Amino acid sequence: MTNNNTDPKSRRAFIKTAALGVAGTAFLTGTAAFPYYNRGAQKKIGYALVGLGYYSTDLLAPALQETETAYLAGIVTGTPSKEKVWAEKYGIPKKNIYNYENFDEIASNKDIDIVYIVLPNSMHREFSIRAADAGKHVLCEKPMAMNAQECREMIDACNRNNVLLSIGYRLHYDPYNMEAMRLGQEQVFGKVVHISCGAAFRNSSKDHWKLQKKMGGGSLMDMGVYPLQAARYVTGEEPISVTAQGYSMRDPFHEINEAVYFQLNFPGGTIANLSTGFHASFNFLLAAAERGRFELQPYSGYGGIKGSSSNGEMQFPEINQQAAHMDDFAFSVRDGKEVRVPGEEGLKDMIVVDAAYQAIAQDCSVTI
Amino acid sequence: MTNNNTDPKSRRAFIKTAALGVAGTAFLTGTAAFPYYNRGAQKKIGYALVGLGYYSTDLLAPALQETETAYLAGIVTGTPSKEKVWAEKYGIPKKNIYNYENFDEIASNKDIDIVYIVLPNSMHREFSIRAADAGKHVLCEKPMAMNAQECREMIDACNRNNVLLSIGYRLHYDPYNMEAMRLGQEQVFGKVVHISCGAAFRNSSKDHWKLQKKMGGGSLMDMGVYPLQAARYVTGEEPISVTAQGYSMRDPFHEINEAVYFQLNFPGGTIANLSTGFHASFNFLLAAAERGRFELQPYSGYGGIKGSSSNGEMQFPEINQQAAHMDDFAFSVRDGKEVRVPGEEGLKDMIVVDAAYQAIAQDCSVTI
Repeated sequence: MTNNNTDPKSRRAFIKTAALGVAGTAFLTGTAAFPYYNRGAQKKIGYALVGLGYYSTDLLAPALQETETAYLAGIVTGTPSKEKVWAEKYGIPKKNIYNYENFDEIASNKDIDIVYIVLPNSMHREFSIRAADAGKHVLCEKPMAMNAQECREMIDACNRNNVLLSIGYRLHYDPYNMEAMRLGQEQVFGKVVHISCGAAFRNSSKDHWKLQKKMGGGSLMDMGVYPLQAARYVTGEEPISVTAQGYSMRDPFHEINEAVYFQLNFPGGTIANLSTGFHASFNFLLAAAERGRFELQPYSGYGGIKGSSSNGEMQFPEINQQAAHMDDFAFSVRDGKEVRVPGEEGLKDMIVVDAAYQAIAQDCSVTI
Repeated sequence: MTNNNTDPKSRRAFIKTAALGVAGTAFLTGTAAFPYYNRGAQKKIGYALVGLGYYSTDLLAPALQETETAYLAGIVTGTPSKEKVWAEKYGIPKKNIYNYENFDEIASNKDIDIVYIVLPNSMHREFSIRAADAGKHVLCEKPMAMNAQECREMIDACNRNNVLLSIGYRLHYDPYNMEAMRLGQEQVFGKVVHISCGAAFRNSSKDHWKLQKKMGGGSLMDMGVYPLQAARYVTGEEPISVTAQGYSMRDPFHEINEAVYFQLNFPGGTIANLSTGFHASFNFLLAAAERGRFELQPYSGYGGIKGSSSNGEMQFPEINQQAAHMDDFAFSVRDGKEVRVPGEEGLKDMIVVDAAYQAIAQDCSVTI
């Protein structure tokens, strides 16, 4: 149950299937549904959100109201005051509300099929493994964990417990990014030779956990995995070497890298020049191929993505990426559909992140 | 006579003057004229083009038909067959045609005021110094020379001979790039924190001198100075450190760097992530400031530049950049106007290029 679909051949096949889904009429009904859903015929899959910060509150819980296969069944929070608010707003029964101490009792809760880990990065490993050990399928936010070793332990725990694992890379469901995957991996304009990609925002926090190294903070962990993902899914390859530069300009950011610029060398000859940071707001993906180009800007937002290529403007419907991902993973859990964004996808990113940190520390290139 | 106008204060003043020129009505007449020209009242300034390759043939000679202050007075070529063609096409008298051997006799030619060096990079130093020693003002193509030391020798030769020196950075006359200078240096959207910039083209040459290291070839020399320039003129600062990566993917490019990606750290805190190469075609400048952004794409073409900022689309007239530059330098020669793009501008780039090559060779960051 490793669901490794990053073999170039199987990924190309996957992209074609996914593209058909995007073009399908069911996709255009305004929901995140896909044509292969057997709607309403079977039990809905229950999600428990672990960690009720901004992303759960403003994105995931609302998205779960738009899913067809899944619903918000439970919550896990360390803040008692949130229990009542969420219970009332989403009709969550008391028996489906947990805290971090009694979390493991979730094992006996038949309503909860999937545990979605939305905690600070340093807690991903522990709670993913506890969820797997409780027999629950796991959806874990990006970045997957603190390093590649933790990712491997999480994958092992899910395999050992015979549960599925997916990582919160919602852009695998965004039609514009799926088109970038197709244009790149199918070499529609020839081989992609160069990628410039950046994802950064001007972060004005003073004490957020993303500013703390021990919590898994830092711009490379938070935003840097987006351009890293883009370089990997446009090429469909794994980088063979990395150079990286870490910068910290402002005061509260000296513990972590306020900005990280990094360069990846791919076996097929593609070079990617990537930027991320908490220092400035920018968001773009530009790919130059042998006989053409394609570009998304912005490219990694929750919505509002725009794209063009040598063939002209891209026109795709806007979807709820989070709803699409949670629906699709629920479908994998219920009916055995291949997991589109498995744990291995997060592991592969963290292998590069580890190498990038090494490149920064040693001020030299690192072979992966 | 060093004409160093890169001091932040004087540059800001300069940009304001220049911006007025762009907005002025004389600018909009469709010629490269500027309001401060005293047209027709004085002698026209004679240019001799040294090296009659593509750039002289297709860009500079036609541009000299559009100048108001200057005209094509002579040529210097190593290819006898070109003499007749050019003489007939542009009405150049035989006495104004030189080859590389008798070039120094140009000293006694009253028709030639400015010698424009359009030779391979390895010949810039020699012919700039020979022109200066012949008492001629010098306009030299970019990159200025093989390294910073050669640039200093060229500046010294011009100072010693009391002649002016300018480098062929035509984008200092492009209204879109001038607007990028203004937005960056005047901090219209706050301090520019990040710059992504790339200038590259898919080069299919097999035996061009740009593929030969000893001729001053390589993508960093040929195209890399454009993003380097952009980072410098958007910030109005000189970088304090550089990291750089050199790549060669295809066969005829192994002697030089087919692609160079490099990162600059500026004293004010700006970081620039730059890309250049012969491997792919892309051309963009993206600047993210504290409270806004601006972008040009394409940004360094001879025409067709498009731009936008947080204030909306940019709308400027398209000008003949080469005509504007040659006219303006002729005006400096005739009436003592400050040289907008002096030799020091080329020297400052080559200091960074030298450091970038060192960073590539040593696989580490280099303090400038």
